[in-house]
Amino acid sequence: MKAYREMTKEELLSLKEELEKQYKEEEAKGLKLNMARGKPGLSQLEIAMPMLDVMNSGSDMHTLLGTDTRNYGDLDGIGECRRLMADMMEVEKDNVIVGGNSSLNLMYDMIARSFCFGVKGGTPWHKLDKVKFLCPVPGYDRHFKITEQFGIEMINIPLSETGPDMDMVEEYVNNDPAVKGIWCVPKYSNPTGISYSDETVRRFANLKPAADDFRIYWDNAYCVHHLYDDDQDEILNILDECKKAGNPDMVFIFASTSKISFPGSGVSAVASSIDNVQWILKMMGVQTIGHDKINQLRHVRFFKDIDGLKAHMKKHGELLRPKFAAVTDTLEKELTGLNIGSWVKPKGGYFISFDAMDGCAKEIVARCKALGVTLTGAGATYPYGKDPRDSNIRIAPTFPSTEEMKDAARVFVLCVKLVSVEKLLEKNI
Amino acid sequence: MKAYREMTKEELLSLKEELEKQYKEEEAKGLKLNMARGKPGLSQLEIAMPMLDVMNSGSDMHTLLGTDTRNYGDLDGIGECRRLMADMMEVEKDNVIVGGNSSLNLMYDMIARSFCFGVKGGTPWHKLDKVKFLCPVPGYDRHFKITEQFGIEMINIPLSETGPDMDMVEEYVNNDPAVKGIWCVPKYSNPTGISYSDETVRRFANLKPAADDFRIYWDNAYCVHHLYDDDQDEILNILDECKKAGNPDMVFIFASTSKISFPGSGVSAVASSIDNVQWILKMMGVQTIGHDKINQLRHVRFFKDIDGLKAHMKKHGELLRPKFAAVTDTLEKELTGLNIGSWVKPKGGYFISFDAMDGCAKEIVARCKALGVTLTGAGATYPYGKDPRDSNIRIAPTFPSTEEMKDAARVFVLCVKLVSVEKLLEKNI
Repeated sequence: MKAYREMTKEELLSLKEELEKQYKEEEAKGLKLNMARGKPGLSQLEIAMPMLDVMNSGSDMHTLLGTDTRNYGDLDGIGECRRLMADMMEVEKDNVIVGGNSSLNLMYDMIARSFCFGVKGGTPWHKLDKVKFLCPVPGYDRHFKITEQFGIEMINIPLSETGPDMDMVEEYVNNDPAVKGIWCVPKYSNPTGISYSDETVRRFANLKPAADDFRIYWDNAYCVHHLYDDDQDEILNILDECKKAGNPDMVFIFASTSKISFPGSGVSAVASSIDNVQWILKMMGVQTIGHDKINQLRHVRFFKDIDGLKAHMKKHGELLRPKFAAVTDTLEKELTGLNIGSWVKPKGGYFISFDAMDGCAKEIVARCKALGVTLTGAGATYPYGKDPRDSNIRIAPTFPSTEEMKDAARVFVLCVKLVSVEKLLEKNI
Repeated sequence: MKAYREMTKEELLSLKEELEKQYKEEEAKGLKLNMARGKPGLSQLEIAMPMLDVMNSGSDMHTLLGTDTRNYGDLDGIGECRRLMADMMEVEKDNVIVGGNSSLNLMYDMIARSFCFGVKGGTPWHKLDKVKFLCPVPGYDRHFKITEQFGIEMINIPLSETGPDMDMVEEYVNNDPAVKGIWCVPKYSNPTGISYSDETVRRFANLKPAADDFRIYWDNAYCVHHLYDDDQDEILNILDECKKAGNPDMVFIFASTSKISFPGSGVSAVASSIDNVQWILKMMGVQTIGHDKINQLRHVRFFKDIDGLKAHMKKHGELLRPKFAAVTDTLEKELTGLNIGSWVKPKGGYFISFDAMDGCAKEIVARCKALGVTLTGAGATYPYGKDPRDSNIRIAPTFPSTEEMKDAARVFVLCVKLVSVEKLLEKNI
């Protein structure tokens, strides 16, 4: 195929005409598909349903240590659930606090805690003139919304296929005491799907922060969310690496079962050094008496252990592979060689990230919407919703069915082509 | 019986000897009972067990409006659970947000939100030199811990049998713009068991706060927690009264099913004006994607409606009545006429509050502890853990069995007598 940029004006005009015809045809179909959020699909929810059978009115509701999960207690979570989450997060049980149904809420509360009271005896952030966070981009919009709500200045850090630009990260973290944190999705990154290289993780662990209370927010949301059985990303253990580097308290690791059991009815966890865990529990003990232990027990009784959980994740992978393939196959087939966009074919996670020609993302999303295909708003993957190049689009292929994803992908590439042609013609004029 | 104060030194010394003998006998029994916290007893947990049968892998998991409770969505809670909580809180469904498993957490987050961002566009509290809260005393220690953590100055307001001293409340609220809130447990108050009179509620609603962002934290924790079927307290609807008085936004009402279904695995709710609800949702939407909707559906399917919930509360009442009676009967039988303590016989809630002679509470709690009976720490019912008279003791009769409560009550009155005699002798010398 000929790259669009190499086409003459006449070729572009003729292409435009053809694409507009296709656009009209799609319009007539009246599609209604939503690829906006990383929502599991119906088939994924179905495989978790037997979780609702592991407990009934005749069940013993006690933990291995004898705690009655039906009553108050165990602020840090029941032992067996801490063990399960620890195994999933590849840390020790004592490093883990099991939270409520949302790891996002755990992250929010950690920022709120730091803002109100300071990090482990440090100056409360609200007393500082300026607090900054580094934001690898494109990234997760809900992370950015949190730091935005707290008035924290966000600094874009480009993300490559090996992770954030570590030269920039070191430059900021090691020199600017106002830089208090960085948002990371180290594995199957939201949205690009890349995983941090060993070198990236080691450079993180060996940071020499200007601020004592600098923390890495390591949102390992997709730690066991592989698409393939035989081709999986693995990342270095950041907690171990930080310890080795003499920075034992520098990282908070977050994870949840939201995309393993049920979104909204899973369990979340935060892992960190024992010192950090003790500090968090001390603060958290004023906020709540404890989280939902019956749901923690339900999870452990269903998954049994990390092997059971990983076996369950294989089923998710099987269900998601064809949906991801519907998108990446279409992108490859329809866009290869046209030089109007790039993407990474992810090996896990929940998203495919597409980089359109500069200045085209918003228009592509708008055109898709007009054809009934809802995507995440363009810009959402950047702090303040501002993609400086108006280029990145996040595709969430998990919620629609595979057939629907094929329709959606077809509409998507059509809109990419049409908007790109229009952009090139606009420049030509 | 002769009042202790009227006894001669000789009489007191002889009484002391007798009581010390009894004390030694109790010591030999090696009791181990805990009345420290308002924890439901085993029999109460058992009656909620059928809740674990209302859902299984074959269940339809959709709400009446068609939301799949297994997936993300419905930040404010599923409609039918909002309805149930609204009926319980005696407000409209649109006034209610269903939260996670803990109303304490909802209260904490509301304070945190006000501290960080201000109340509905008001000045964030962290920017103010001084923020004060009124604290009716004796009150709930976990309320006080929250305001203490945020550095909010707490002011004691005496609580009588009709509610807080409203002259004092009006004086503070209507004149001091630093007063931003008040902690209230309006029904079967923790720990005294009293309920606010209609006049008290109306005076609350008709406050003319010096601070625009003054809010009443109305923790209606025991709204349906009656001990008797035929003798129940009812309180005026504060949301209605505030609306009538031209203060529609002045109150946040909190409740949960922690002591209805399962502590730690119930659902919580906050109710307020529509304007406040919208503000809360806007802020909360950054904190979480949503709460546990499967658990919300589980609650609705189990209780069905408010009548089902009230029928369930009758069972709780039946289970709790003998435990409360074990305490109040013993107090009446053993202490009436001795003039060494006072208490209210509550008609609901979770506690019995005992006022010992000044300067005796800590010692009574310590003596009970030495005999194996753990009570809430003396002072806990006051801000900063400081009971200025060292008089109030909170008794939580729900967790032990009725037989155990009889033992505990016997030990308690013995320690009250002994410490009182010692105090009187001390004064005599």
